[in-house]
Amino acid sequence: MSHAEEKTYDVVVLGAGSTGENVADIVVRGGLTAVVVEPELVGGECSYWACMPSKALLRGTEVLAEARSVDGAKQAVTGEQDVAATLARRDSFTSNWDDASQVQWLDSAGIDLLRGNGRLDGERTVVVTTADGGTVRLTARHAVAVCTGSKASVPPVDGLADVDPWGPREATSAKEAPARLLVLGGGYVGCEMATAWQALGARVTLLQRGGRLLPGLEPQAGEAVAAALRDAGVDVRLHTSVTGARRDGAEVVLTSDDGQEVRGDEVLVAVGRAARTDDIGAESVGLEPGKYLSVDSTLRVEGLPWMYGVGDVNGRRQLTHMGKYQARQAGAAIVARARGEDVDTAAWSPFVDTADDVATPSVVFTSPQVASVGRTAAQAEEAGLPHRVVEYPIGSVAGASLFTDGYEGTAIAVVDTEREVLLGVTFVGPAVAELLHAATIAVVGEVPIGRLWHAVPAYPTISEIWLRLLETYRG
Amino acid sequence: MSHAEEKTYDVVVLGAGSTGENVADIVVRGGLTAVVVEPELVGGECSYWACMPSKALLRGTEVLAEARSVDGAKQAVTGEQDVAATLARRDSFTSNWDDASQVQWLDSAGIDLLRGNGRLDGERTVVVTTADGGTVRLTARHAVAVCTGSKASVPPVDGLADVDPWGPREATSAKEAPARLLVLGGGYVGCEMATAWQALGARVTLLQRGGRLLPGLEPQAGEAVAAALRDAGVDVRLHTSVTGARRDGAEVVLTSDDGQEVRGDEVLVAVGRAARTDDIGAESVGLEPGKYLSVDSTLRVEGLPWMYGVGDVNGRRQLTHMGKYQARQAGAAIVARARGEDVDTAAWSPFVDTADDVATPSVVFTSPQVASVGRTAAQAEEAGLPHRVVEYPIGSVAGASLFTDGYEGTAIAVVDTEREVLLGVTFVGPAVAELLHAATIAVVGEVPIGRLWHAVPAYPTISEIWLRLLETYRG
Repeated sequence: MSHAEEKTYDVVVLGAGSTGENVADIVVRGGLTAVVVEPELVGGECSYWACMPSKALLRGTEVLAEARSVDGAKQAVTGEQDVAATLARRDSFTSNWDDASQVQWLDSAGIDLLRGNGRLDGERTVVVTTADGGTVRLTARHAVAVCTGSKASVPPVDGLADVDPWGPREATSAKEAPARLLVLGGGYVGCEMATAWQALGARVTLLQRGGRLLPGLEPQAGEAVAAALRDAGVDVRLHTSVTGARRDGAEVVLTSDDGQEVRGDEVLVAVGRAARTDDIGAESVGLEPGKYLSVDSTLRVEGLPWMYGVGDVNGRRQLTHMGKYQARQAGAAIVARARGEDVDTAAWSPFVDTADDVATPSVVFTSPQVASVGRTAAQAEEAGLPHRVVEYPIGSVAGASLFTDGYEGTAIAVVDTEREVLLGVTFVGPAVAELLHAATIAVVGEVPIGRLWHAVPAYPTISEIWLRLLETYRG
Repeated sequence: MSHAEEKTYDVVVLGAGSTGENVADIVVRGGLTAVVVEPELVGGECSYWACMPSKALLRGTEVLAEARSVDGAKQAVTGEQDVAATLARRDSFTSNWDDASQVQWLDSAGIDLLRGNGRLDGERTVVVTTADGGTVRLTARHAVAVCTGSKASVPPVDGLADVDPWGPREATSAKEAPARLLVLGGGYVGCEMATAWQALGARVTLLQRGGRLLPGLEPQAGEAVAAALRDAGVDVRLHTSVTGARRDGAEVVLTSDDGQEVRGDEVLVAVGRAARTDDIGAESVGLEPGKYLSVDSTLRVEGLPWMYGVGDVNGRRQLTHMGKYQARQAGAAIVARARGEDVDTAAWSPFVDTADDVATPSVVFTSPQVASVGRTAAQAEEAGLPHRVVEYPIGSVAGASLFTDGYEGTAIAVVDTEREVLLGVTFVGPAVAELLHAATIAVVGEVPIGRLWHAVPAYPTISEIWLRLLETYRG
C-alpha cells in the first residue's frame, strides 16, 4: 500500500449505478467534490441488465396486444412482431452495453470516475485496485457512500449452480430466445421475463414455490398475471419446489419435490437478491461481508457516522427509482452535515426516506401490468392500521372500454378509516403504469378522501376509476 | 293547463344528460324523490354526440400510430385501419343512439323519467309537454335543477346557416367520411374532429380565426397539434376569418376576409356553444331566455333559492366530468338544505365547486394529446399570482423513449412561488391523458413542492417527467 497513489475527496461513492450517480450528482451540486468507483459499466444494473432492456423487450408485445384489441385497428395488424428488430431495439436501449454516454455525463456533472474495485480500509478510506493493476488510496473528508447494489442469488438447490443458469442479466441480454426457457421464481423478474420470452418465441415454464405469483402484492395481481401467462401459453406451475438440477446433454433438467422433471434449454433463476457487500472491505470497519447495510432514515450506516448505504445495498427497497430517491435524500444529508447544518429527521423532511416506509411505488410490466404504491390490505392489517379495502373493476370505466375492447382489470384501494387517507392503491390491467403516480401523490400528500372528491378525473379516461373507488368507499 | 296531470316530487331535474342523471342520483341516494324530464335521448350529448363517439373515432388511429412507432412491433402493422369497423365500434359506444340501457339505469336508481319538453312556470313549477301531446304539471318541494346543457352555436356568417352545416352532433355521428371536410374553429372539437376524419379518409381543411389552435391552453399545445395535423395532411389555416358561405351544387364554398375561397363537401361549425335556456320558461321566473344561468358556488341560481343550474347550462366549465362534479356538489347541497342542515360554503367543502375555479382538468384527444389542469401561465399572470413556469421535454424521459421511438412531447408546470404549490400542469404528447390525474390530485390537494419530492415516479414510466419538472424548478 505504501506506493499507492493517494487522493482526497469530500465524498467517495462506491458503485456507479443510478444510485451512486445520483449521490455524486447531489453532493457535487452542493459544492462538494466526489469520485465514483466502479469496476463494471457506469450506469449499473438498471441501464444494462434490468429496467431498460426488460421494458424494451416487453414494449412491442404490449403495444401490439393493444392494437389487436381495438376493432378497426386490429385489421391493420396482419403481420407478426419482428423478434430480431425487438432485440435490436433492446440493444439500442442498453447502448450495446457501452457506457460511453454515461461516462460523459459524469464528466459533465463534475464527478470523477475511477474504474476499479473499491474496498474500504478503515474509517473514510477506500483502496481501489484499478483495471491496470494499480492502486489508489482514497480518503473521504466527509462521507463514503456505498452504492454497490445487489446481485441475483442462486438458491441452494442441488446442482443448480453447475447448470450454468441464467440470472436476470442473462435473461435481459440474451441474443435470441431459447426454444424452451425454464423460469425459477414468480416474482416480478420471473413474471416479466416469462412474459417477454414467451412472446418472443420461447416455450416458457414458470416454477413458483408458493401458491401465487407476485407474492408481495395484492393477491388479485398474481392471479391476473398467472391467468394471462397461461393464456399466452406459459406453463405456470405453482406450489412447485425445485430440489435438483442437472444438464442432460444440452438440456437443463429440473426436478421438483413431487418427483416431477421439467426440461428446457435454459433456466432463469430469479428467486431473490443478495447485498453486494462481500468484496467491499466491510470487515475493515467492523461490518460483516455479504450482509445488507443497516441504515437510519438518512441512509447512514448505524454506528458509522461517515458511511452511507444507499440503494439496493441496504435491502430496504430494491427498485431503481427508490435507489435514486434514497440518493437524493442521503446526498442532501451529506451536504448538510458537511456544512455543519442541522439535518431534520422528521418524516418527509428533505433528508429522510419516508416514502420507503409508506409510499413505495412499483410497476410490474407484465400483461396485464401491476402498478402499486403504499400498503396492501395484508400489510395494513399486519401494521394494525384501521382500514377498509375497496375494489372496482377497471373495465367498467368508459375510458377503459374505449382503450381496448374487453378491457379487464381491477383497482384496489386501502383506506385508513381513522385518518381518511389512502394507505395504498393497486391497479391491475393493461397500461395502468401511468395511472400509478396519481396514487403515489395521494398517498405521499396524505390528501384526505374528502378533498380527493374534488380531484375530478377527465372523461373519458381510465383514470375515472378514481371516481368509482371513491363512490365504492362512500357506499 | 287546468286539465294537466299534476305530480309533486322533492326535486325536478330538467335534462337527462350525465349532469341531470347525477343530480337525480345524488338526491335520491339522499332520500329525496326525483323526476328527470328529457325531450331527447337519456344520456345526453356526451353519450351520443360528444365524448363517447369522438373518442371511439380517434382510438384506433391512436393505437396504430403507437404500434407503428415501436421498432419490432411496427413490422406487424402491414395493413390499414378498417374504417367501417371503426365506425361500427363508434356506433356500439353510442348504443346505436338508443337509450334503453340508460333508461334502465334511471329505473334501477329509483329515478322517475318523464319524456317531453319541460318549461318552468313560476316558482318550483315545471310544465312538461309529453311526446304524445299531453301535459304534466310538476311541482318541486325543494328544488328544480336545470341541467339542459348547451348547444353548438352557429356564428353570424353570411349564408352559413343555409348550407346545412355539420355541428358536433353530425361530426361525431356521420356514417361515412366526406371526401373533403371543412372545419370551422380550432378549439378542441375542431381539432379532434379534424384528427379523426383526416385519419378516416377525408381531406380536412381547418380554418381558425385566431393565430393558434386550442387558444385557452398553453401555446405549446396548439403549436404541437397544428404541426401534427399538418403532418397528417390537414390544411390548417390560421388567422382566417370566414365571412361567407354558400352551396355551389353539392359543394360548400367558404370565403374568408382575404378573399380566398375554400371548397368542401361538408362543413363542421365548431366555434362555440350557447346555453340551452331558450325554451325552458326562463321568463316565468324573471330570467332572460338563452342566457347562461348565473349560479353561486353551490350551483344555486342567484336570487332563486329553489333553483339550480348545473353543468354546461351555467357556462362555467363545459366538460362532462365537470358537469358530473357540479351535480355531486349541487346534489349534496339540495339534500342538506331539504333536511334543514347547514351547507358549508367554504372552499373544498362537499357542497361547493371549488375545482371549477382552480382545478378543472381537460384532455384533448388529438395526436398528440393535450392534458391540462388548473391555471396556465397566462391565467396565473392574469390572476396576479406569484409564479414560475417550468417546462421539460417528455421525450427525454426513459419511459417515454421506451413507449414509442422518437416520442415528442412537453410538460409545463406553473408553480405558485409563494405557497410552493402547483397552480397548473399541462402535458402535450402521445398517451398523456392518464398522466393528468396525478397533476389534478397535486393541484387539488395543494401538496407542497417539498412533499412532492417524496412522490417517487416508478421507473421507467413516462411519469418520471414529474422528477424532471421538480429538478427544473429546483434549478
